[in-house]
Amino acid sequence: MPQFEGSRKVYVQGQLFSELRVPFREVELDSGAKSLRLYDVTGSFTDPQVSVDMRAGMAPIRSAWIAKRADVQPVAAPVGRRHESAVDFPSRNVPLRARSGRSLTQLYYARNGMVTAEMEFVALREGLDPDFVRREVAEGRAIIPANINHPEVEPMAIGRNFLTKINANIGNSALSSSVGEELEKMVWALRWGADTVMDLSTGKNIHATRSWIIRNCPAPVGTVPIYQALEKVAGKVEDLTWEIYRETLLEQCEQGVDYFTVHAGVLREFLPMALRRKTGIVSRGGSILAKWMRIHDKENFLYTNFEEICEILSAYDVAFSLGDGLRPGSTADANDEAQFGELRVLGELTATAWKHDVQVMIEGPGHVPLNKIKENMDRQLALCHGAPFYTLGPLVVDVGAGYDHITSAIGAAMIGWMGTAMLCYVTPKEHLALPDRNDVRAGIVAHKIAALAADLAKGHPLAIAWNDAMSEARFAFRWEDQYRLSLDPENARRFREASYPKDGTSNRCCTMCGPDFCAMKISQDISLTR
Amino acid sequence: MPQFEGSRKVYVQGQLFSELRVPFREVELDSGAKSLRLYDVTGSFTDPQVSVDMRAGMAPIRSAWIAKRADVQPVAAPVGRRHESAVDFPSRNVPLRARSGRSLTQLYYARNGMVTAEMEFVALREGLDPDFVRREVAEGRAIIPANINHPEVEPMAIGRNFLTKINANIGNSALSSSVGEELEKMVWALRWGADTVMDLSTGKNIHATRSWIIRNCPAPVGTVPIYQALEKVAGKVEDLTWEIYRETLLEQCEQGVDYFTVHAGVLREFLPMALRRKTGIVSRGGSILAKWMRIHDKENFLYTNFEEICEILSAYDVAFSLGDGLRPGSTADANDEAQFGELRVLGELTATAWKHDVQVMIEGPGHVPLNKIKENMDRQLALCHGAPFYTLGPLVVDVGAGYDHITSAIGAAMIGWMGTAMLCYVTPKEHLALPDRNDVRAGIVAHKIAALAADLAKGHPLAIAWNDAMSEARFAFRWEDQYRLSLDPENARRFREASYPKDGTSNRCCTMCGPDFCAMKISQDISLTR
Repeated sequence: MPQFEGSRKVYVQGQLFSELRVPFREVELDSGAKSLRLYDVTGSFTDPQVSVDMRAGMAPIRSAWIAKRADVQPVAAPVGRRHESAVDFPSRNVPLRARSGRSLTQLYYARNGMVTAEMEFVALREGLDPDFVRREVAEGRAIIPANINHPEVEPMAIGRNFLTKINANIGNSALSSSVGEELEKMVWALRWGADTVMDLSTGKNIHATRSWIIRNCPAPVGTVPIYQALEKVAGKVEDLTWEIYRETLLEQCEQGVDYFTVHAGVLREFLPMALRRKTGIVSRGGSILAKWMRIHDKENFLYTNFEEICEILSAYDVAFSLGDGLRPGSTADANDEAQFGELRVLGELTATAWKHDVQVMIEGPGHVPLNKIKENMDRQLALCHGAPFYTLGPLVVDVGAGYDHITSAIGAAMIGWMGTAMLCYVTPKEHLALPDRNDVRAGIVAHKIAALAADLAKGHPLAIAWNDAMSEARFAFRWEDQYRLSLDPENARRFREASYPKDGTSNRCCTMCGPDFCAMKISQDISLTR
Repeated sequence: MPQFEGSRKVYVQGQLFSELRVPFREVELDSGAKSLRLYDVTGSFTDPQVSVDMRAGMAPIRSAWIAKRADVQPVAAPVGRRHESAVDFPSRNVPLRARSGRSLTQLYYARNGMVTAEMEFVALREGLDPDFVRREVAEGRAIIPANINHPEVEPMAIGRNFLTKINANIGNSALSSSVGEELEKMVWALRWGADTVMDLSTGKNIHATRSWIIRNCPAPVGTVPIYQALEKVAGKVEDLTWEIYRETLLEQCEQGVDYFTVHAGVLREFLPMALRRKTGIVSRGGSILAKWMRIHDKENFLYTNFEEICEILSAYDVAFSLGDGLRPGSTADANDEAQFGELRVLGELTATAWKHDVQVMIEGPGHVPLNKIKENMDRQLALCHGAPFYTLGPLVVDVGAGYDHITSAIGAAMIGWMGTAMLCYVTPKEHLALPDRNDVRAGIVAHKIAALAADLAKGHPLAIAWNDAMSEARFAFRWEDQYRLSLDPENARRFREASYPKDGTSNRCCTMCGPDFCAMKISQDISLTR
């Protein structure tokens, strides 16, 4: 993957940890304008000094930091081995876990006053004080998803006092896609700016697909383990057991997944409420658990075994993304008793997870009309003790099929501004089909816009500097700089150049207004003669 | 232009005016679901009973209503004739104006307790009481832009207690496009849902392009007359005079333009403020007037002659769209003293226009970060006496080049919810090039989403019914109905069908999740067995 034209990879060295090399995309600008450093999620893929070999995986930059903390030990009998297949990633190190009686989560370290290399990495990325990062993590307002078995990850933070992040979902379904395609989608997602990637595969080769992704992904990787658990019982919900789920958790912890969506808040008592709705249950995980509870007439096994799940996650520093299995799938169902009942349970589970030093974020809806968005944020803050909110959209209308990246970006921008820490992208194919490369690009750019709009509204200095650099380039007709500073430099260039005459017509306009009607040109002329 | 598949044109007859035939698009739904009537802006283009001949123009449905009011007379020496060209529309009736001493604006009628055919038409379109429409117009909270010389128009209202409307800009530039292309763009804009169309041509054949558009457009047509005035002096701002502008106004009033953007609030005193900005003046009209004031060292001639402009507009019932010549062109410039100084003047001019019974709406920005949008709406309401607000976007970031339909839709949805009556679309080519057909479609659909999101948040029954019909079709896997109820039925169908296997796989899923992981299917199964 080449770097965007006019940008180059630069690294900033750590101060507390001198081995830290924090990446930025430096955008060089014309005409003496100062170059601009942008947050960079593309890892080694855009470093010309690194020859990328996806069969070898990315460099395990965190291995030394983890080893130095001396609180890990090899897993004696890894679960993952049993699930490897011919297409799996060429295996390497034995997976690690916490030494008996030790805690090694970023939350544990932060609470105990320790600024980790991961925290300084985050601080340098975002222009913050390392101890500020530590405090945000210690208070549970931010998480740094970084499984000790994903040493390739470039640490990043999800929290409302950090840049708003976006997640891109990839993964195959039973009807579509292969390992290679999903790996390509992952790299592609990073190119356009995904801060984390969720592998939501439900089709063939779930374990192998995930191995290739994790070993090559500089961003945190999230999953929904119930999908693989269900695959292990051939899609038969009735055959799901806690034991199979537990084994799946261990397998994925050992593999290096950084955060798990766990739908532990979908309780039996909420089902009658959810099934009365216009669109019932629209979370895949939520519906699986609902069906399981119906069949067995028992409480959700993720809820009844939640303490044990916490113990497992804490041994690898895997973060919770507490799933909103009862999110509304239509604006009609927004903010109902099923949704908010589950949210209340997620708040209780947050407190439980924190007892075990496990990092937590909370998933949010869904389809919500504009006038009901604020209540979602207010309640989440009140019920979930300030844990980061991670929302899908929300989509503000139901009739946008084919354009749901836009219906989602509208709600996402608003809830991001109100304090949501990470926005899950939605692509134009939502509700219709599995997204392809073009959809992934469109979905990511739409949600980068939403995240940046939120950051700008929150007054983030980096967002202001970026937008101002663009506006200055625009007013000065520095077209190359405008392309470079755009969220999608390739499209910006292509759009203008496709229609602009190449006959020496003045560069101080575009085809929208032509030379006589360009307001900025006239405005500039006046300024020059004043 | 064919009707969307599964929809048909229906008409509702007037009660006060039995000759009224108010069009709707009736969406037929499968499985006994009730059909849904949607607001329809496509005029005769989608009526299979009408054979459209663009050389003849649309039927002048309002002519009889206008004649019956007996307050018009033919214009003795039409200005327009002088400007006709070989490519002009084959001319027809002599233009009309108010009889001496008579007023004929919808505002005048409304203030005098008269419910016009235009008002009943609007009431039937929106499911409102005709006298409610009259009161909204009488109070200045809504306008019905309907020049007596545009009898082809299907009356519609712009006001915050009506459905949120969207405008599509078309028109050529010196560098691009022809009459035929612009006419095609107009029809295309209606197809995707534009409620009004602005012809912003600045290139060749301005008069002729406009004739063809007006004679064939069932939606109100707006213009910015200063563009044509400048063309008449060969683009030399210094040669612009009040007399040339005045003649241009008369020409366009006679032709049938329904509303004029008039930048009468760009005063000399604001120029130093505007020229200190990061992006100066970004309104074409605003920059032209600024340059004129600089060259002649005089006050804006639109301001000094404003009373006479009111007299002219009142004789044809052309509405003002008081232009925001000093709107911010970058988020850095939002809500500054230049912008709000001009808005204060627009409020004063609103009162002046109302004295003359001229209908008024107020144009708004521009580039505004999310946290500064509300202040725009609050001030507009306070300063402009409740006149409808008509905003461009606002665009919530500056770096979205190539995706500015999205940056704009985000701000538009929010300000629409707060009470903005009409949203001006922005296309993906904004800042880069003149939009083509695909851009017009993308821009319109994005802003239809914004408008519908606003209406849904405001609790409009039509918006709720439409979204609920879609959600019910979605939950019942009625795919054909989902396509029909989508804002872009063609794309929705294409996206799903391109990837869905045609081998008899169950219809109760899509390729995103496949059959085993479809939450709605599982959720439905549970409901059925409960």
